[in-house]
Amino acid sequence: MTISLQTPLPDATDFETGPAHQLDLSAEAQDLLFRRARTANTFTDEPVSDQQVRAIYDLAKWAPTSMNNQPLRIVLVRSPAARDRLVETLGEGNKAKTAVAPLVAILAADHAFHEKLPKTFPHFPGARDMFAADETLRAQTADLNATLQVAYFILAVRAAGLAAGPMTGFDAGSLNSAFFAGSEHKVVAVVNIGKPGQDAWMDRLPRLDFDEVVTTV
Amino acid sequence: MTISLQTPLPDATDFETGPAHQLDLSAEAQDLLFRRARTANTFTDEPVSDQQVRAIYDLAKWAPTSMNNQPLRIVLVRSPAARDRLVETLGEGNKAKTAVAPLVAILAADHAFHEKLPKTFPHFPGARDMFAADETLRAQTADLNATLQVAYFILAVRAAGLAAGPMTGFDAGSLNSAFFAGSEHKVVAVVNIGKPGQDAWMDRLPRLDFDEVVTTV
Repeated sequence: MTISLQTPLPDATDFETGPAHQLDLSAEAQDLLFRRARTANTFTDEPVSDQQVRAIYDLAKWAPTSMNNQPLRIVLVRSPAARDRLVETLGEGNKAKTAVAPLVAILAADHAFHEKLPKTFPHFPGARDMFAADETLRAQTADLNATLQVAYFILAVRAAGLAAGPMTGFDAGSLNSAFFAGSEHKVVAVVNIGKPGQDAWMDRLPRLDFDEVVTTV
Repeated sequence: MTISLQTPLPDATDFETGPAHQLDLSAEAQDLLFRRARTANTFTDEPVSDQQVRAIYDLAKWAPTSMNNQPLRIVLVRSPAARDRLVETLGEGNKAKTAVAPLVAILAADHAFHEKLPKTFPHFPGARDMFAADETLRAQTADLNATLQVAYFILAVRAAGLAAGPMTGFDAGSLNSAFFAGSEHKVVAVVNIGKPGQDAWMDRLPRLDFDEVVTTV
């Protein structure tokens, strides 16, 4: 496991007595993906290769979307000029860390995802036309499912032993103009990716208790 | 591992030669969460306990949201009357399987999530008022982050050795009226949960190739 272990394990007794013990997923995998993994704000200089991104995508792609519609599109921002264009569109607090992250990915929703449904959902031949006829439904469906895929992608980055720094603090209009003019791609999130660096994160913030989140009817 | 292994492993050579081999996450965990896990349409009669749901939430809660805002709210639909009310609001293709699933959860976005920011994001005391003043921003932020958390929840269900059957085929207006009248909760997804039953799934549908999804600039 290459995620830094400098952060204390939340609920340190979980693996002996708590709910973590009841899961089939190994303690090591729980740590790697959820419990010890953290949103990183600094990274080492170690590059992130295309081969690593292929491995990340090859895992994330299997997780489910509605009607298998898979609207997520990923732009790897590798050239200095593109990096500059991206940083311009970010909120002040996100500029400096994104300027120096080993890899930055723009994660977008393809609002023309329906064009691929004949391949991805072949047993419902009318699917493409159904979405072609309803732009609002298409936009909602693309945004919702691409957002699910952003979450899968973040966990898959962690599965590769890397840290993710997902951000939603950007000017979406400017970012879409800078990268997606003339297409139907709309940014959902920007994610910095790399090995966590010095002081990569703050103390863990509190999570809501079960009883604040879950009710039974 | 309790996920059924009746489905052939996708990309069966991955663990020897392919990208899966390059991940830190164990092959067993990759299978449990992503590769062999499937969206289930039938379930066994085995119940899903509150203790299992606690374990699922206790894992999913650690994955990241913007400003740690955690807008996901979960309603466990356990009474027959509530189940009937829910099934009424679903699309035809989702009614029968949801009527008999061991557990059904409604996953919603709390558009009043900002009321909890003083607890969950204490170092930015102005956060609650910023969202209180902008209903559009609040709705967008709630929906996006609750959707990320739906994805984390689906994978955490799988981590518990259970199968998830997530659905977006429902009348959102009717569902919100039936379950969230007078609150600011808005449904994002409905998820059936249990051990997969007979013929729980169809053949796996194709995923988009890396080169259809990823570009470099």
